[in-house]
Amino acid sequence: MDHLNSLELCEYITRSLNKIRHKKYESYVINRIVHQLNDFTLKFITQQYVKRSDNKIALTDLYFPQLGMHVEIDEGHHFEKTDSSTQKFEYVDDLTNSNPHYVIMQTYEDKFREEDIISITGHEILRINVYKNENGEAQSLQSINEQISNLLKIIKDKKNKLVEGKKFTPWNIMAEFKSETYRDLGEIKLKDNVIFKKIVDACNCFGLAYEGYQRGGAKHPIEPNTLIWFPKLYKNDEWDNFLSADGITMIEKSVNPSIMPLKVEEWNNGLKKRIVFAKVKHPLYRKDMYRFLGLYEMQGKATIENGGIWKRIATSVKTYSSK
Amino acid sequence: MDHLNSLELCEYITRSLNKIRHKKYESYVINRIVHQLNDFTLKFITQQYVKRSDNKIALTDLYFPQLGMHVEIDEGHHFEKTDSSTQKFEYVDDLTNSNPHYVIMQTYEDKFREEDIISITGHEILRINVYKNENGEAQSLQSINEQISNLLKIIKDKKNKLVEGKKFTPWNIMAEFKSETYRDLGEIKLKDNVIFKKIVDACNCFGLAYEGYQRGGAKHPIEPNTLIWFPKLYKNDEWDNFLSADGITMIEKSVNPSIMPLKVEEWNNGLKKRIVFAKVKHPLYRKDMYRFLGLYEMQGKATIENGGIWKRIATSVKTYSSK
Repeated sequence: MDHLNSLELCEYITRSLNKIRHKKYESYVINRIVHQLNDFTLKFITQQYVKRSDNKIALTDLYFPQLGMHVEIDEGHHFEKTDSSTQKFEYVDDLTNSNPHYVIMQTYEDKFREEDIISITGHEILRINVYKNENGEAQSLQSINEQISNLLKIIKDKKNKLVEGKKFTPWNIMAEFKSETYRDLGEIKLKDNVIFKKIVDACNCFGLAYEGYQRGGAKHPIEPNTLIWFPKLYKNDEWDNFLSADGITMIEKSVNPSIMPLKVEEWNNGLKKRIVFAKVKHPLYRKDMYRFLGLYEMQGKATIENGGIWKRIATSVKTYSSK
Repeated sequence: MDHLNSLELCEYITRSLNKIRHKKYESYVINRIVHQLNDFTLKFITQQYVKRSDNKIALTDLYFPQLGMHVEIDEGHHFEKTDSSTQKFEYVDDLTNSNPHYVIMQTYEDKFREEDIISITGHEILRINVYKNENGEAQSLQSINEQISNLLKIIKDKKNKLVEGKKFTPWNIMAEFKSETYRDLGEIKLKDNVIFKKIVDACNCFGLAYEGYQRGGAKHPIEPNTLIWFPKLYKNDEWDNFLSADGITMIEKSVNPSIMPLKVEEWNNGLKKRIVFAKVKHPLYRKDMYRFLGLYEMQGKATIENGGIWKRIATSVKTYSSK
């Protein structure tokens, strides 16, 4: 059974399109894009959490991960946006320092960090203005439809360029959560938006079986000095971990000061590289999943004050078949 | 400002598409039809109440009034359908004695009669099966999309035949509620689905000004022996009126037996023909509006037992410019 015939695709698409209901025009615009694009080799995500450079969190209305492209429906200041859990949003200056945008009032340090929040460094943000044209008049359906037609051209062009450059992998919902997909590719890349349902699926990309897993992570069976790690990158009962908005810096700290000396010793004597899969809440299925963030390396010595500091040193890692 | 540029169209379309959220696949299917059809000269109505021949009421998922065509999304028995006011539905044998369908458990005699409920005599019902294919397997997105493609062909063919026969009037949301539209046409036809926002708009189709209105109706200034009538065709504090499912028979009775002798005398001595605009709740705007039902004529003599009995004698009436 292939992608287009899979029940998973049906489930994914209907859930995604039923999820949108925040702004008056959101359902109209997103449905029109999806149904007129009519290309299910392009994955789309509705309501994607993204990290802003000021460390706040925003929601984009539609996200095409293969294209690194987001669509924002711009209803102006006077509409208040709320998400399904009635979070409050404020209207701020930008998403990428260029345009007005709704932003969740909580910052990345707050409780929303367990969500699947992606970095939008290098992404393109397209906007559909549904509230006022250049003459200050309310938009007509015709004008909204024309904007959507233009946007569809941009999406298709970007996809075609990737296809021509042999850099496009068609969406395959049956394959995307499977270890063998990435073993066959020979690597896991940040820009492929890899997210696994289970820790074992990530481990199996590196020649490991689940047996190899230990609390805190699994030692890489082939690469030297490397841990496969599944942290919660938000404050929780045990950890006060941090990931910077650009995804480059990671800080590991315990919430319990009395165990910090022990941890600092562990870090300083432990494996110096970590392949990181952060534990996140999948936005559609609302289940814990594990998002690939890259390969990180410890910076200098960990201390009780600073915790362990890690920098991303690669956005892709090699995969291995099981022994 | 034309139809496509009107704010009314924007409002209508977004309200209609935001209203649908009863079945899992309903939003997907209806949005796909609307956006791939992409023809805003075709009016569509989501969640149209229809009268069944057994006097029960059903809701169809999508209705194209110009084509007399309905689309039903068939999710099988195991899904319970509820509308926004959490009415209960039951799954019965048919909508047109041919296919299974959800039906509101209340009959036409019950409280739902103030809704805008149309007769579907002669209408075509198309179905999208989203739950099982002929092999008993769950439907895939591909199969649902193919069904929608076929349905779009049928819709376009039906429209094209009307256009070729010069029987197609493009939807014009700016014009549809205006008296002058029908004065210009020279008639009001049942199959044009005429509904007015105000009594005065209906009166003005017959050379009357609002001043001509009196309690119960307005005397037609040109046609002899004819009243322009705006009844509630459902039981209310004053009246226990009835309209048959085929729209042909109308019975007028008071709920108050003590005033019936007076009424019977009034009917027997009054105007024998009535142009009927029934007071209904518009499904989208939730406001009282007035739907054209035809020209009716009194049958025999009214009696206290039977009330006044009226039969439809024409499905169109002539319109007149004001004097």
